[in-house]
Amino acid sequence: MIDARGQEALTGAAQAEIFQILRDGKPRTRSELATLTGLARSTVASRVDALLRVRLIAPVADAASTGGRPSRQFAFDGTQHAVLGVDIGATHVHLALKDLHGATIADVYEEIAVAKGPDIILGWVIENGRRLFKPHRARMTLRAVGVGLPGPVEHKTGRPVDPPIMPGWARFDVPGVLSDAFGVPTYVDNDVNVMALGEHHDYWTDVADLIFVKVATGVGAGVIIGGSIHRGVQGLAGDIGHIWVPEADGLECRCGSRGCLEAVAAGPAIAARLRAGGADIHDTADIVAAVRRGDIDAVREVREAGRIIGRVLTTCVSLINPAVIVLGGPIASVGDHLLAGTREVIYTRATPMAAGNLQIVSSRGNQDAAVSGASAMAIQQVLSVDSVEALVRDDA
Amino acid sequence: MIDARGQEALTGAAQAEIFQILRDGKPRTRSELATLTGLARSTVASRVDALLRVRLIAPVADAASTGGRPSRQFAFDGTQHAVLGVDIGATHVHLALKDLHGATIADVYEEIAVAKGPDIILGWVIENGRRLFKPHRARMTLRAVGVGLPGPVEHKTGRPVDPPIMPGWARFDVPGVLSDAFGVPTYVDNDVNVMALGEHHDYWTDVADLIFVKVATGVGAGVIIGGSIHRGVQGLAGDIGHIWVPEADGLECRCGSRGCLEAVAAGPAIAARLRAGGADIHDTADIVAAVRRGDIDAVREVREAGRIIGRVLTTCVSLINPAVIVLGGPIASVGDHLLAGTREVIYTRATPMAAGNLQIVSSRGNQDAAVSGASAMAIQQVLSVDSVEALVRDDA
Repeated sequence: MIDARGQEALTGAAQAEIFQILRDGKPRTRSELATLTGLARSTVASRVDALLRVRLIAPVADAASTGGRPSRQFAFDGTQHAVLGVDIGATHVHLALKDLHGATIADVYEEIAVAKGPDIILGWVIENGRRLFKPHRARMTLRAVGVGLPGPVEHKTGRPVDPPIMPGWARFDVPGVLSDAFGVPTYVDNDVNVMALGEHHDYWTDVADLIFVKVATGVGAGVIIGGSIHRGVQGLAGDIGHIWVPEADGLECRCGSRGCLEAVAAGPAIAARLRAGGADIHDTADIVAAVRRGDIDAVREVREAGRIIGRVLTTCVSLINPAVIVLGGPIASVGDHLLAGTREVIYTRATPMAAGNLQIVSSRGNQDAAVSGASAMAIQQVLSVDSVEALVRDDA
Repeated sequence: MIDARGQEALTGAAQAEIFQILRDGKPRTRSELATLTGLARSTVASRVDALLRVRLIAPVADAASTGGRPSRQFAFDGTQHAVLGVDIGATHVHLALKDLHGATIADVYEEIAVAKGPDIILGWVIENGRRLFKPHRARMTLRAVGVGLPGPVEHKTGRPVDPPIMPGWARFDVPGVLSDAFGVPTYVDNDVNVMALGEHHDYWTDVADLIFVKVATGVGAGVIIGGSIHRGVQGLAGDIGHIWVPEADGLECRCGSRGCLEAVAAGPAIAARLRAGGADIHDTADIVAAVRRGDIDAVREVREAGRIIGRVLTTCVSLINPAVIVLGGPIASVGDHLLAGTREVIYTRATPMAAGNLQIVSSRGNQDAAVSGASAMAIQQVLSVDSVEALVRDDA
């Protein structure tokens, strides 16, 4: 009933399924794969051979014998391909070489201001990326690069748009430059989305809806809905730092507007209040240091910032009913003071049903969340159906 | 290369695709369908025959001749199957018999209080549903029932949970009773989700992210993300009526808490303020009548309610960056006063980029949005792959 062209289209789709089934890491025999896909054993055998050739699966220890000759099992093997995860922050660059399981093979971190511009920053990324990968090139293939940038990114092109702390980066072709240098596709997103993805990928994969909030020089959120980053119609979803809040009424924000959440609850606002009280505190790093040494005023101000952010998040909880809220960024990572303020408000003000099962936690990934998310973004692309099919086709 | 069982599984999936392709209503020939699916012409021909037999497609006028014998075209035909859409409100029931295109064949509306309980209300639905369908049973098959209820519904079971205005309905098996009576599957959701679905289905299908807000005795939202209702981890997404707002500080809410949005911006709160000013206004219907006759105080209070709701929605806009906000319910449908207040605040306070492309509009479906959404929910199920496959299989 099926002609040659039809057979090809159909077996293509079902063959692609074989790898997607094996991605969970569970070893399976050829005959189990035939049952799961409905494909003929000969078709399964040739697809398994192809996946072995491109080194996306590997044979595992023999299956328990059922009397006859033991059947060979195969499972996803992500150790022979690599991705580069790149976390470009306001004042640092963090680069990690990872395999397709997300395991770190090597990484490098350096304090460099993003304001130095794309030539210097991306030059550093290219030089260090090549250096990290060199010792592994004999046994691994670099497949993709994922990048997080500290400012808004146009999703379609991967270019920074209107980036307030990134002079010289506006509309710079970040994916083009890195793809040329490394010879692989490059995916770019803003740092908060990338951190949300990293935190979800590493610690909360069983949760569908999660809000990640970063508190640093600004306040922003990454919104995960149904397991994926939700971007909204213009890619602005999660831009909660410029919500008007009564506590910031009249206060000027770096965005040019007044009354924004950032203008009262982010690092510069907390530092300004502490300075007004006589403290020698100028930036987020000073706040972190003060909290660490137990400065009572700093602790109080961070907790109050948590309360103000919590009031905004209470509305977010009612709107999307997430399972988890994660607080990240430097101010969230020093003690539980920001977390305590946020919890206090949300658990008091959110409806009892929505608050009852909501977890509010500090980031576990911390400084590694961004580089982990940038890698996860690249790995997701490498293991997608289209990408695996292209690899098998190019190899044939 | 494909054995019999594999061939069956594969052609099943590709055959299912034939109907999903035809759902857009565009007429196609058998040979176009063969090209689109990669299936053999003989397979396409037998699937087209099967879909004709179950009356989900129909032949259309002949294709323009290309010299030879003209090819017959086929398209989705939803006129031979029906669904019942049921909108159960606080004080009314609205029942519509629709075909699978969403066209209304007959409908009936009656003022009955939901507080009369499930026996009386569902008895009315069953009696009137049968009466509406009777004249059409010779030419149509009833395939499903969709119901909207004026209170929270457990998504998994379709049963009302903790319904404040629905005495006697708690955990009542609404889907069971209606499925037994009509002999078809029944799908139940709360009225706000159903209205959001109706508004999206009828007027905004090209939009992925939309928030529908109903303002009546309470305030609630239906959140559409990526074209589908977003429910959240406990099905509470959109429950914005009980968000704490400063304007309601200290005011008691019917939920037992204080300071809720509903306690200051819903019908009863507006009526109470107007009564305090000496007006003879007791409920939402009185407010609507007062606004309609141009009562200045009523107009002012409705506009102010719009502003308060707008402040909450500004946060929602920043969080999910929707393309459209739709205001519905009786208070939104009388003049543009609620809309004006909401727009004023959102366009002033939301970030310019997010507000720039955001449409804020009054419901176009109005009183028909709920019955339309209840029908749309049923139609989506009837036209799903699983449901179409079951129909074809049972017919064979």
